[in-house]
Amino acid sequence: MSKKRILTGDRPTGRLHLGHYVGSLRNRVRLQDEYECFFIIADLHTLTTRPERTGELKENIRQQVLDYLSVGIDPAKSTIYVQSMIPENEELAVIFSNLVTVPRLERMPTLKDVMRDSKIEIPSLGLLMYPVLQSADILMPRAHLVPVGKDQASHIEVTREIAREFNRVYSEILPVPEALIPDDIGTLPGTDGKGKMSKSVGNVINLSDDSATVRKQVMGMYTDPNRVHGDEPGDIDNNPVFMYLDAFCGGQDEGRLEDYRSRYLTGTVKDSEVKEFLVEVLEKFLEPIRKKRAEFEVQPELIDKILREGTAKARDEAQKTLDAVKSAMKINYF
Amino acid sequence: MSKKRILTGDRPTGRLHLGHYVGSLRNRVRLQDEYECFFIIADLHTLTTRPERTGELKENIRQQVLDYLSVGIDPAKSTIYVQSMIPENEELAVIFSNLVTVPRLERMPTLKDVMRDSKIEIPSLGLLMYPVLQSADILMPRAHLVPVGKDQASHIEVTREIAREFNRVYSEILPVPEALIPDDIGTLPGTDGKGKMSKSVGNVINLSDDSATVRKQVMGMYTDPNRVHGDEPGDIDNNPVFMYLDAFCGGQDEGRLEDYRSRYLTGTVKDSEVKEFLVEVLEKFLEPIRKKRAEFEVQPELIDKILREGTAKARDEAQKTLDAVKSAMKINYF
Repeated sequence: MSKKRILTGDRPTGRLHLGHYVGSLRNRVRLQDEYECFFIIADLHTLTTRPERTGELKENIRQQVLDYLSVGIDPAKSTIYVQSMIPENEELAVIFSNLVTVPRLERMPTLKDVMRDSKIEIPSLGLLMYPVLQSADILMPRAHLVPVGKDQASHIEVTREIAREFNRVYSEILPVPEALIPDDIGTLPGTDGKGKMSKSVGNVINLSDDSATVRKQVMGMYTDPNRVHGDEPGDIDNNPVFMYLDAFCGGQDEGRLEDYRSRYLTGTVKDSEVKEFLVEVLEKFLEPIRKKRAEFEVQPELIDKILREGTAKARDEAQKTLDAVKSAMKINYF
Repeated sequence: MSKKRILTGDRPTGRLHLGHYVGSLRNRVRLQDEYECFFIIADLHTLTTRPERTGELKENIRQQVLDYLSVGIDPAKSTIYVQSMIPENEELAVIFSNLVTVPRLERMPTLKDVMRDSKIEIPSLGLLMYPVLQSADILMPRAHLVPVGKDQASHIEVTREIAREFNRVYSEILPVPEALIPDDIGTLPGTDGKGKMSKSVGNVINLSDDSATVRKQVMGMYTDPNRVHGDEPGDIDNNPVFMYLDAFCGGQDEGRLEDYRSRYLTGTVKDSEVKEFLVEVLEKFLEPIRKKRAEFEVQPELIDKILREGTAKARDEAQKTLDAVKSAMKINYF
């Protein structure tokens, strides 16, 4: 039995942060033993909201690979590749664009969300087409599973519709993928406790941040807004500092975390003391990641090699899929 | 001085007919001496209105090349190639899709026309995207001129907007093409005198029709609907038979045509006599075309070779353009 395939990835918009780790990277590191993983660096998707910022993509892609490697994504097990270097992705997207209607795409809830978040008043065709290009990304390696957050589940639904429609019109060749929504995937708020981490908001801690930056971000974190002094009882449930501790406190520090929890609830510990503990916990978590990153940072030719080999491997799969697609459509002319 | 480039072509939806000849083919044969011509066989465009009919494309493409060759399009002068075999077309289309808005495409007058003509109630994304893929077709060989009918001029306008927007956002690398609307391009009505020739309506005479079919179609043609008998004066201005005679009567038969005209106006000739004359004129026109077609029909490997070489040549140009586009965008990573 061959392993099932997974497709997932990121837009190369900058450094990855603790939110990415909790929401997806941690899970990917686990998945790569059980599944054959394809990790796409989706540079073309960035054009849908920021076409004028392509100048930063090259460096962002390198940084993203460094982030992947530093948390334990292993190019010997998984395939890391760049979307725009697989022309078959675009060929499939153009073919699939004829199998989905405009109103279907206009109704995508993510379209409104992205337009609001990116302050886009009039969508480009590329933005409307985004779920179709993503469908091509997913169907290209004939992925069985796509790990997604709930907000992206609607995109997998479009992918499934396109695969089914292709199979109905032409021939049964595309596996209909399923969303993989893991039980234990957490979400981490920004350091300001408001929504997700976002570089533009400035409420992030990156996986590549140095100790001074981590300390500064933690010391500025929101806690329980109703607690003014350290001798007042506080809330730990919606308290970002404790949410971070829950996410990153290793087994050996569980006892200490439990102690901080009860002292916070009873008003016998200052915010700054809990934050010092969080700095310690995050340093313990980040130190091996930084070390691994530093090892790879001095080998730019190795990053190139990983990308080149991953892209070549992905392209082999893409060609197989496109050949099958064109055969099914009878447009493999000579 | 190198020659200016022209891009034009057809959807491979079936045999080409006299309307194609008068409206474009005749002109193309002339253009290929003065310009470097790229003739695209736009198979992907057929997916926008009839995605389920890809099974007939392979044969339609061969027939289209035979039609081209039979009227005098010369593969030694011009490049004949298949759209779907140039993946750079789709790559460019996906990039360009980020430079044009959805409402801009929804306002295209051709969208409504195509939906009405093809009885499409809900447009696919592919249909909305059609002018963008066409823009990629045009900008791919960096064409300077695009011969179009007036109904397609709006598509060239979109192409010009996309080229200008690309040049503005990234770098001045794409020539902004111009529509070439020749003075002497005629339009030929269908044999029923109603609108253009259309295979589904059955009012066509194909370039590859045999003598019996041509005779049958001419004998069934509409003339002056108010003229019942041959001894009544008739109208020649909106009379399909005389419109065909105007288009296909060679210089040596001009005198005879003039004679038929005056006899028709004075009511001294029967419709059937004028039609016999049109049969003779069309046979004189079609015979060398049929002969040339027959020569190529027995050489299927030559058709393959022409398509293969044309596609390879087009692909060279496409790669040059895509390289320049990716360099301008700084997404030529390694």
